[in-house]
Amino acid sequence: MGNIFGKIFRVASFGESHGPAVGCVVDGCPSGVELSESDIQKELDRRRPGQSAISTQRREADLCKILSGVYEGKTLGTPICVLVENLDQHSFDYSEIAKLWRPSHADFTYDAKYGRRDPRGGGRSSARETVGRVAAGAIAKKILGPSVTIRAWVESVHSIAMPLLREMPSLEDIESNAARCPHAATAEKIIEFIKKTKAEGDSVGGVVRCRMEGLPAGLGDPVFDRFEAALAKAMLSLPATKGFDIGSGFAATRSYGSQNNDIFYIDSGAKVRTKTNRAGGVLGGITSGEAVDFRVAFKPVATIAKEQSTISTELKETKVIGRGRHDPCVVPRAVPIVEAMAAIVAADAMLMQRAARI
Amino acid sequence: MGNIFGKIFRVASFGESHGPAVGCVVDGCPSGVELSESDIQKELDRRRPGQSAISTQRREADLCKILSGVYEGKTLGTPICVLVENLDQHSFDYSEIAKLWRPSHADFTYDAKYGRRDPRGGGRSSARETVGRVAAGAIAKKILGPSVTIRAWVESVHSIAMPLLREMPSLEDIESNAARCPHAATAEKIIEFIKKTKAEGDSVGGVVRCRMEGLPAGLGDPVFDRFEAALAKAMLSLPATKGFDIGSGFAATRSYGSQNNDIFYIDSGAKVRTKTNRAGGVLGGITSGEAVDFRVAFKPVATIAKEQSTISTELKETKVIGRGRHDPCVVPRAVPIVEAMAAIVAADAMLMQRAARI
Amino acid sequence: MGNIFGKIFRVASFGESHGPAVGCVVDGCPSGVELSESDIQKELDRRRPGQSAISTQRREADLCKILSGVYEGKTLGTPICVLVENLDQHSFDYSEIAKLWRPSHADFTYDAKYGRRDPRGGGRSSARETVGRVAAGAIAKKILGPSVTIRAWVESVHSIAMPLLREMPSLEDIESNAARCPHAATAEKIIEFIKKTKAEGDSVGGVVRCRMEGLPAGLGDPVFDRFEAALAKAMLSLPATKGFDIGSGFAATRSYGSQNNDIFYIDSGAKVRTKTNRAGGVLGGITSGEAVDFRVAFKPVATIAKEQSTISTELKETKVIGRGRHDPCVVPRAVPIVEAMAAIVAADAMLMQRAARI
Amino acid sequence: MGNIFGKIFRVASFGESHGPAVGCVVDGCPSGVELSESDIQKELDRRRPGQSAISTQRREADLCKILSGVYEGKTLGTPICVLVENLDQHSFDYSEIAKLWRPSHADFTYDAKYGRRDPRGGGRSSARETVGRVAAGAIAKKILGPSVTIRAWVESVHSIAMPLLREMPSLEDIESNAARCPHAATAEKIIEFIKKTKAEGDSVGGVVRCRMEGLPAGLGDPVFDRFEAALAKAMLSLPATKGFDIGSGFAATRSYGSQNNDIFYIDSGAKVRTKTNRAGGVLGGITSGEAVDFRVAFKPVATIAKEQSTISTELKETKVIGRGRHDPCVVPRAVPIVEAMAAIVAADAMLMQRAARI
Repeated sequence: MGNIFGKIFRVASFGESHGPAVGCVVDGCPSGVELSESDIQKELDRRRPGQSAISTQRREADLCKILSGVYEGKTLGTPICVLVENLDQHSFDYSEIAKLWRPSHADFTYDAKYGRRDPRGGGRSSARETVGRVAAGAIAKKILGPSVTIRAWVESVHSIAMPLLREMPSLEDIESNAARCPHAATAEKIIEFIKKTKAEGDSVGGVVRCRMEGLPAGLGDPVFDRFEAALAKAMLSLPATKGFDIGSGFAATRSYGSQNNDIFYIDSGAKVRTKTNRAGGVLGGITSGEAVDFRVAFKPVATIAKEQSTISTELKETKVIGRGRHDPCVVPRAVPIVEAMAAIVAADAMLMQRAARI
Repeated sequence: MGNIFGKIFRVASFGESHGPAVGCVVDGCPSGVELSESDIQKELDRRRPGQSAISTQRREADLCKILSGVYEGKTLGTPICVLVENLDQHSFDYSEIAKLWRPSHADFTYDAKYGRRDPRGGGRSSARETVGRVAAGAIAKKILGPSVTIRAWVESVHSIAMPLLREMPSLEDIESNAARCPHAATAEKIIEFIKKTKAEGDSVGGVVRCRMEGLPAGLGDPVFDRFEAALAKAMLSLPATKGFDIGSGFAATRSYGSQNNDIFYIDSGAKVRTKTNRAGGVLGGITSGEAVDFRVAFKPVATIAKEQSTISTELKETKVIGRGRHDPCVVPRAVPIVEAMAAIVAADAMLMQRAARI
Repeated sequence: MGNIFGKIFRVASFGESHGPAVGCVVDGCPSGVELSESDIQKELDRRRPGQSAISTQRREADLCKILSGVYEGKTLGTPICVLVENLDQHSFDYSEIAKLWRPSHADFTYDAKYGRRDPRGGGRSSARETVGRVAAGAIAKKILGPSVTIRAWVESVHSIAMPLLREMPSLEDIESNAARCPHAATAEKIIEFIKKTKAEGDSVGGVVRCRMEGLPAGLGDPVFDRFEAALAKAMLSLPATKGFDIGSGFAATRSYGSQNNDIFYIDSGAKVRTKTNRAGGVLGGITSGEAVDFRVAFKPVATIAKEQSTISTELKETKVIGRGRHDPCVVPRAVPIVEAMAAIVAADAMLMQRAARI
Repeated sequence: MGNIFGKIFRVASFGESHGPAVGCVVDGCPSGVELSESDIQKELDRRRPGQSAISTQRREADLCKILSGVYEGKTLGTPICVLVENLDQHSFDYSEIAKLWRPSHADFTYDAKYGRRDPRGGGRSSARETVGRVAAGAIAKKILGPSVTIRAWVESVHSIAMPLLREMPSLEDIESNAARCPHAATAEKIIEFIKKTKAEGDSVGGVVRCRMEGLPAGLGDPVFDRFEAALAKAMLSLPATKGFDIGSGFAATRSYGSQNNDIFYIDSGAKVRTKTNRAGGVLGGITSGEAVDFRVAFKPVATIAKEQSTISTELKETKVIGRGRHDPCVVPRAVPIVEAMAAIVAADAMLMQRAARI
């Protein structure tokens, strides 16, 4: 259970890290959406490891195939299956890992839940599972169309944070560096910091910020399916995430209503706007038409190249040291994944909204 | 849409603030659970306004009736409808509010979504909607039974924060003061602060922390329905929430893997434990058996007794000043509501887990 | 579980026969639908027992109250709770029935499933549960609007069948007699037959036919949620139903393709039509624009005034004889209930269809 | 939408007839189920066309691959993706069919719904879609285990019906002939009849009967998700189905309660049984422990080798004649598909039932 997301635009994800393939089936994509494998591939390429000195050296082409739901370049309204074969799956002996529970990994909890697990590369708990999400997110972006822009970036790694940005950074600025931080000076520091952390055999966390512009007012279904609740679920469903906040977020807890409220006004185009956007684009669970603006906290990845104590599946004390190819910091690579989940939430809300009025 | 929560234990919530009634229908409660109106009433009483000098003076008995699903003191396995009539609904003229959009309220977005709204007391967007959640949460607590303890408290209001607590505070300490803060000295400061804020006609936010003890390892459905994702959705679905984090949360983004990882060991009872609990009780979306420990950020309530600029539904500039009876700080009253949603998530996960293995 | 129906227009039903109340919560009704208690009451009045010599003499006003979701005569887009109190609930001693399993009733299976049941009037398995369905169906009819007509009638009782009707009968003809059979001569025979059956202490089954006109082509979601699959589920979810067929139905199994196919043509209004409608208005799970035309088989009600052997809950042989007020034939009273479920299916499909194309 | 079935055991189906592949993703299969490709392949082989003189000559190996969710011969509790490539997809020119709507096919309704369709082999509306169902059904059968037997067979084709069978026929008897009818003399007549029908360029319908033995009492979720309602939906979701009945079914409408009721007794093993099984194994939507026994009506397939009138997508009158390889009668090949859907319903209900009691 738990591998299907969404209400109308529904994404079923599948695949283990070192099984034959990973991918997704998207049910509920409207017909008539122009869609090609290259639309999906370009997002997968952003997610792909091995692209820079600061990410894992696992090298996979991650070539996607659309197996259904598209005909003559457009969606049919039927399920879209996207498949990515795992080519790099036989490079490592997992027999040792199969017999112990790595600290802060899901080995123990998968065993507790299911009584068994696939130890190869983390199996289903691997970040490789996000391939299906990114593919589905690429389809969601096509539904949203060019009037909606969803863009994520790295706001901080460890205590290195870029200056607060009120405007949307350009995609070029974000993608210009391996840190995916649009502030060049901060990016440089982050890259150095990650390299140093890697050299020390350690890992480090950070914050991804995401901004969605162009969404109409009215999206999101109160009470339980508030737009921000759906976003929070989507983000906390990502591997290694520990927090989510929107608009003024946790900082709002330290402010007064008179400071935190956003004042409505009519802009020059006769559109209802707010002078500030401390709400982060949602009021009462419904989008206001202002930019949806949120942050996601990523912990340091659990795998480190330092020896750690742990216990074996036979309940003996043992030691483990991270091997294989791992990111010292997943935060830059999380950027397209955060965007993908945000796009899925928005596309689903957009389709749901069509049923809101008679 | 959006008024049904859960997979097996499903809660359908209904009711406007000043309509005839609020309540819920719970589908999927197992049969054989001992349940009486007093089980629900005692939680509703904790949620009820008008209990202290620092909360709204709206006084309602909020008496619940169980209309179905219970026979001879035990649940039948059939839907449980809990109803609370709105007695205090005719005390105010809402004609003015109907014609404008209050800053940082959901008036504008409900109009944007639905083309109309019930202006009386905020209608469906009122915190009164949480009555149904608390009732359902009381049922969920009965399912979880005495081996599970879910307890929330106020950790901070504005910049007044209690010292970091590693252990579960007692219910007595939490309920001993109007701030619902188990640290007496901090509670006193918070109460003074809220009184002062109220006197100034302003409002203020804060952080609720919640801890769940006694949950078995194995709950939660990766990938999309991770335990923490379900919690995040549940919490961000509450009125006035702006953030959620779990375990080391946002602080984890400023740490190293070697600092943040939790080391497994075998305790004296031959149980697998971790020496620390930076994970907050979840690994890979599944509970580890350690306490689930999370925080929820509440913004200052939007209604303040200061004049604010806004615009009318006819797009004219106007002014508004908060009237009626409002909490200057909802955070203490949010405590039982956070517990209720946590209990709903846990009960649902507990029932789902029964299907995890052949 | 199992008490929530629909995808966008979702109906949560609750209530035991002799508990405090029965009713429903409808989530996903669009805003702006004109709705009053009288819209619902008129359908409930058609369902109400005690209206004729051939139905049970249980007399209840079955007055409905709308508790939420409607403001100033129109829906808000928020959940609509409709409540009907059970006034006639204390008239009978159920202690004997509590200790045995009546033949062909759900007493045994409820005990097998839940370990307990409410014996008073059948509890949740009573046909009284359909009050919530009829209320929700009345709302669904308002969504569908005046261009859609859904009309059911009694086609046969036991072996007394009316002549095959190709056209929609008038509501007046259907409601003109206690049999709800639009063919007067057949109606008379059915009424006599039911009276005679009642006098003999027996019960009898029959077929309800339902026709939906005015639905646009394009409704229904293949593969699993075909329009006819949703209808079949809706109908087989009704008490005492044993079969469903659509269009030429079971008769189609005895025909050739060359006989059963419906030939397309363009009518005078340039609309695509079929010369016949053996499909019953659906092709490949999607409505064709022709009338949706289906039949539902109702078994004789299980309660009869003849002594039958059975066993007690303590596994002893015993005898039981039906008492209380029961319909010798539920088929006429099932007519508005079949319509209600058909309307719910159609309204849900209508709202879903809005998301079918980009 | 509409391509996901089930509540806990959820099946997402995908694939067009002549696209790259068809298959399914099963979410919610418990961990620890022994599962191999051969378990699935043997069911697919029963479904495969080209096996006898009376079925279509399209020849495909239909080799399945399990892409995820299984490790070392057992399920992991994670999604199971089963893929079958379409090898035989380029053998025909569909440009003519793309421009018209074949009588009683889904061409017109897909166009009405989605504005477009894949004309190659019927696209998503092809019976080839059932490959995913059969694969999922094979997994469901493994969950149910050897104590549950689900067996379907052909009861009639056109007006040739086998004698009424009260007992479960053997698999050998069913599979011993191309008609999949366990009564040899009837089977012979059916085969002759289908051959003759084929020679005449026509098609013919029939009835599949299915019996499920070994299910415990207590499965199924009243009210809306009654066991028979789930079955009815499952069966009416199959291509070419027009009806469903259970137990005494439509025949019950012509009987009295005193005839149709099933009398409880205690069998020699102290088990609660009924002397007859007119209920077809369900009471009040819940299984009774007796055999679940139902029938499904299949219409004659729409494709016939006779010329028929129709209209083009440009609304001109035209003619069409069935070409390609088609079954004159799908009923024998529907047998494993009916079993698969029945198994999916039963496995889902079995897993749901685990949550029924505290």
